[in-house]
Amino acid sequence: MGTTQLETVPEPKYWHLKTVLREALDADFAVGEILPNERDLAARFGVARATLRQALEQLELEGRLQRRRGVGTTVAPPRVGVDVSTTRGEWPGAAQDAWRPVDCDLTGVPAEVATLLETEVGEEVHTVRRIRISHGQSVAAERLYVPASSVPELSAIDAPSGPARARGVLRELQHLGLDGQDRAVELGSAGADDARELDRLPGAPVLVVTTRYVAGGRTAAVSVATYRADTCRLTFGASGDLEIGENPQERQAS
Amino acid sequence: MGTTQLETVPEPKYWHLKTVLREALDADFAVGEILPNERDLAARFGVARATLRQALEQLELEGRLQRRRGVGTTVAPPRVGVDVSTTRGEWPGAAQDAWRPVDCDLTGVPAEVATLLETEVGEEVHTVRRIRISHGQSVAAERLYVPASSVPELSAIDAPSGPARARGVLRELQHLGLDGQDRAVELGSAGADDARELDRLPGAPVLVVTTRYVAGGRTAAVSVATYRADTCRLTFGASGDLEIGENPQERQAS
Repeated sequence: MGTTQLETVPEPKYWHLKTVLREALDADFAVGEILPNERDLAARFGVARATLRQALEQLELEGRLQRRRGVGTTVAPPRVGVDVSTTRGEWPGAAQDAWRPVDCDLTGVPAEVATLLETEVGEEVHTVRRIRISHGQSVAAERLYVPASSVPELSAIDAPSGPARARGVLRELQHLGLDGQDRAVELGSAGADDARELDRLPGAPVLVVTTRYVAGGRTAAVSVATYRADTCRLTFGASGDLEIGENPQERQAS
Repeated sequence: MGTTQLETVPEPKYWHLKTVLREALDADFAVGEILPNERDLAARFGVARATLRQALEQLELEGRLQRRRGVGTTVAPPRVGVDVSTTRGEWPGAAQDAWRPVDCDLTGVPAEVATLLETEVGEEVHTVRRIRISHGQSVAAERLYVPASSVPELSAIDAPSGPARARGVLRELQHLGLDGQDRAVELGSAGADDARELDRLPGAPVLVVTTRYVAGGRTAAVSVATYRADTCRLTFGASGDLEIGENPQERQAS
């Protein structure tokens, strides 16, 4: 039974190369070290550059390599666990929040967020931008979308934008009774703004965490947080203070 | 403040093409429809094939396209929310479990799992393979690693392998008192076995969910589940019965 009904997918050309490269990384390179350029590497392993490039892309997905414009390809440090478990009944911006407010503007709400907020596409909402710092590095960029109706007491007079405005919106949210929140994680690609804030190339794979905050029986705010997929492992400590602390880098059966 | 200290990363060549392609997908193509081949597409949009390929890869990351060997590139259906929230105190294989046991063998434990289980690398553990079906499709493949010491009563006599053996191991786990579990999500690439079971190409991006089950003060089992990143959005319904039901496909600020 099991898999017999599925056709056999042969391993692609770069598969063996990937294994060889992974072993070379373990044996010959230190974390942070810059790899030789693609031409030299292809020559060293006797493969075509296209094959080499595919293997490098794979190792990037697996968190073993990082590619940065102007630097080249470097050996990645182990991924860092970033706690994204929800604390029941806490709004963003509550005490102990790991996020730093950067800016706040009135912007049109993107289509997929409009659906969650049950607002019209393009309707203006307070958009709080925040950055999450972990171990001295920006690991995530967030957009928190808050309809004006969720923060009716917000003063329009002082601080029309900037971090002070962001803090004002967050402060107003704390006044609402939070019914609950839910969360989804999916794969995405870094937009130009997020890429800049996370020091990644536009289009780099990211983990997108969408959180819906429900108050008074409706969605009062939606957070879309973009985490660096190369350096982050999102942890959900569902039961007390357990946490997966080690670095499971290579997940395939070998 | 904010982003001023970071260098400006220019948008890559394929960026505009991606936007154009996305609009074309919305306007001219139905879900499941096969796209013209790369040469024709490149000609249609007046770009080099390398540029086109980068844009297609991006749209695949974002869940808009699927690429399958022997079929070509098709327009992806909206991602499906797959619930991965933990139920406190439940072992895998408990009632209502969404997973189907496929096989069970004694195999050497991979290095990263050995660390979590605090066993020696290569030490043999019961390895239960399971498949998760959602909406008639395999959405995830799991390896559940169970040291012999966690299931001391397991009979070695009947069903040395196969689904029956898998069910036997899961049944024995239910006898242990579960202290808690924690969970981590990270990006990975599909190994050859997982790719076969998930009907994906080897190396396709996947979301890897690692769960540690703690009983009697130690890690009694570790599950490494590989979810299709193209079709799945992992949902964590942290507060009661809320769930993000809509399909937020496009996450960038546009």
